[in-house]
Parts: sequence; C-alpha cells; structure tokens
Amino acid sequence: MTAGTLFVVGVGPGDPELITLKAARIIAAADIVVYPVTESGDALARGIAQAHLGGGQTEIGFTLPMRTERTPAQDVYDDVCGRLTTALEAGRTVALLCEGDPFFYGSAMYIHDRLSTQFPTEVVPGVTSLTAAATRLGRPLAARDDVLKVLPGTLDRSVLARELADCDAAAIIKVGRHFDKVRDVIGEAGLTEAASVVERATRDDERIRSLAEIGDDDMPYFSTILIYRGGEAWS
Amino acid sequence: MTAGTLFVVGVGPGDPELITLKAARIIAAADIVVYPVTESGDALARGIAQAHLGGGQTEIGFTLPMRTERTPAQDVYDDVCGRLTTALEAGRTVALLCEGDPFFYGSAMYIHDRLSTQFPTEVVPGVTSLTAAATRLGRPLAARDDVLKVLPGTLDRSVLARELADCDAAAIIKVGRHFDKVRDVIGEAGLTEAASVVERATRDDERIRSLAEIGDDDMPYFSTILIYRGGEAWS
Repeated sequence: MTAGTLFVVGVGPGDPELITLKAARIIAAADIVVYPVTESGDALARGIAQAHLGGGQTEIGFTLPMRTERTPAQDVYDDVCGRLTTALEAGRTVALLCEGDPFFYGSAMYIHDRLSTQFPTEVVPGVTSLTAAATRLGRPLAARDDVLKVLPGTLDRSVLARELADCDAAAIIKVGRHFDKVRDVIGEAGLTEAASVVERATRDDERIRSLAEIGDDDMPYFSTILIYRGGEAWS
Repeated sequence: MTAGTLFVVGVGPGDPELITLKAARIIAAADIVVYPVTESGDALARGIAQAHLGGGQTEIGFTLPMRTERTPAQDVYDDVCGRLTTALEAGRTVALLCEGDPFFYGSAMYIHDRLSTQFPTEVVPGVTSLTAAATRLGRPLAARDDVLKVLPGTLDRSVLARELADCDAAAIIKVGRHFDKVRDVIGEAGLTEAASVVERATRDDERIRSLAEIGDDDMPYFSTILIYRGGEAWS
C-alpha cells in the first residue's frame, strides 16, 4: 500500500477569503483534516477553512494545554502523531490546518518534524498575521532598505531592549501575557508613538489601537505590535 | 459620481495556486488591472493572476527602468498614477497587482501612497516569497523564541555584518547584484553552512541550493538567502 501524503496547510490570518486556492483545494480533497483546538473549545484554523470541508471527511481536533511553547505538549503530539501515522500508513491523505503560515513561528513543526521523515509531506505557505496586520494599518511592514526584526514577546527584557534600540521596523509577536513588559521596553526605547497594536487582524473581531492609547484596564491578549521608526510611508 | 476603489493586491510568490480567494475575486471583478513589467517584457504578477483576468478588462502594464529602489522612477509613477486617477474619478475599480505581499518591501507603496489619500483603497495581503521559500526548503523560517531579521542585501557590508553577528534566523532579500558582498559577509560571520539560497520559490523554474555549493560561474540573481543558526528543526 502506498503511504498517504501529509499536507501541512497554512490557512491565513483569519479572514476565510485569505486562504489560498491551493490550501482550499487540498483541504477539500483530504481524507482527514486535523487542527488544534483551544482549551476553551475554539478551533480557529478549522473555522477559517470551514467552507472547504466536506461532510465525508474525518476531522481530528487536538487540544493543547495552555503553556509556553518552550515546553510543547509532548503527550498530545504523541497521540495525534500516532493516529496520523495509522492513517498515512493506510494510504489516506491528511491535511493539518495551521493559522497563518505553518513555518512562521507555527506549532505545526512539532507534528511536521515527527512525520515528514516517514511520509511524503508538503507544506503550503499562507498569509501571515504580520503582513495582514500591516495591510489593515495601511502601512508597510517594511520597505526599501529597512531592517525588519520579528521579536517574540517571550524574550527577556534585555534582549528586546537591545533589538529595539537600533531597528527600522519591528513586529512583536506572541505578546500575550507579556504585554506589560513589552510596553515598558517599547516606552524605554522611545518608540511608543511609533507602535500600533493589532488584535485578530482580518477577523470579524479585529481591533487596532495605537500603543499609547491602551490603558491598564483594557489590555489586549492576542496581539501583534508593529513598530515603524521611519514614518515616511506611515500616515 | 462615486469614485472607484483602488485595490492593491498581493498575488503571492509565483505559483498561481498560492493566490488568495480574495485576490482572485477582486482581480476578476476589477475594471482595470495594473501591473509592473520588466524592461525585458516580463509581467510576473500578471502571469500569476492570469487565470482570473477576463477579456473585458482594461490592462495597464508599466515598465520600471532597472535602478535601485532608493530612487524610484518618479516619471513612470507620475504617468501611471495620472491614468489611474482618471479611471478612479470615473468610478472604475482598479486592481494593482503585486508579487508577494504589497506591504512587505513592495514597490506598490509608491502608487499606494499617492492615491490612497484621494480614493477608497484596500490592500490585500499575500503570501510572501520568504515563507514560500521556507516551505520549499522544508524548514521553519523561524520558530519558538527566535529573533528573525529580514535584511535587504542592499545594506552596507558593516550593517549586514553587525545584524548577522547575533541573530537566530535571517532572511536576506534583494540580493541581486549584491550577491558577492552578501556571500562574503555570511562567510565572515561563520554562517555559510547554515545558509540556503532560494531562487524563484514556488515557480516553475525554482532553484534551491546551499550557499556553500554556489560557484562564481553560476551565481543567482533573483534570490533570497535563508539562514538558520539553530538547526534543531532543520534537516
């Protein structure tokens, strides 16, 4: 029996129309569709792809406990990869859905790395939340000779401060519960006025604010902070 | 008369299937489709979008002379923006096609900035050549707590050297005729073995090589160089 193929598919930032034609085709044709589910039951990637799911497909949602990505949930991945191995060995086609792009700070790599050495695997890139956020702001993420830095908010304060000290443009991702720290560091770098906070870019509940206007009583959780030191192209 | 809308549309890295559903819809419905053409007559963005162009649309190709992006061709943009202004004032819908994502180091900003203050404008993000290149390599562009730097190859040697000295992951774009300089700097940083050169990711003539294997007689022109210092996820 010929093994099935694993497709690791980016479904884009949230707007269901920002999925690619290729992702839509692969999802619709897959025997098994796999996606993460939050502890509160949300399956964002599935929601984005919903229009392309047929009734005859097997769906596998897996729940990752909330914890830092430094310690991925090995037991959950063991279980998912076990089920997918059985399916792939039986010749079935699997589509693993990922928000944004699978290889841009995605957690899909934990499944990809375990299965891609055993089965035919193809990764389909997607629109990232970063470029989506920039288009929603109406400002380039970076341009011309800019150095652009992508900085996880999980980094130590000193690392963030050093990286922000001399950059043209920065995007701070994975802000989450690190918002206070990140806001402090941006302020100390004198970049508060150059910083925009984008929550859930291109989704129905998208919210965009300048960093300066965010009060302690209304802090974002799922946000990306875009900083542009230049300003020529920013209105 | 209600003014028409300007859509600035990312069409992705090259594979026509990596266009988004939204981009395809907007292009198909536009009255006027505008795109850059190289001096040698290539219209890559148009080629990517071709399946969505109907016979009844007006097409405007504009040719940018080869020169550095530091000095954009103002006369060409003057002419294009003049024609688009007339069309938008007449209520026509315009789709400006851009390779990759319009706000990720794109030249579409030169048209966007001139027209977006006068006419309703929407920017549609696209898959960038960077994440596409990473998926073709089978390696994450960045993951976990990585700092990712995007560095134009046009930067001075000293700036490139400084930025490469302490990064986890880097993508060098706009390499072009700066290949020799970029290769030298990567070598001096001890990163040659960690560097992959991707040309025309996802296109029919895609080519992927390690930096170490590129000889002086076969240097790439349109390339992106991806560097990953970590390695855990890289095979």
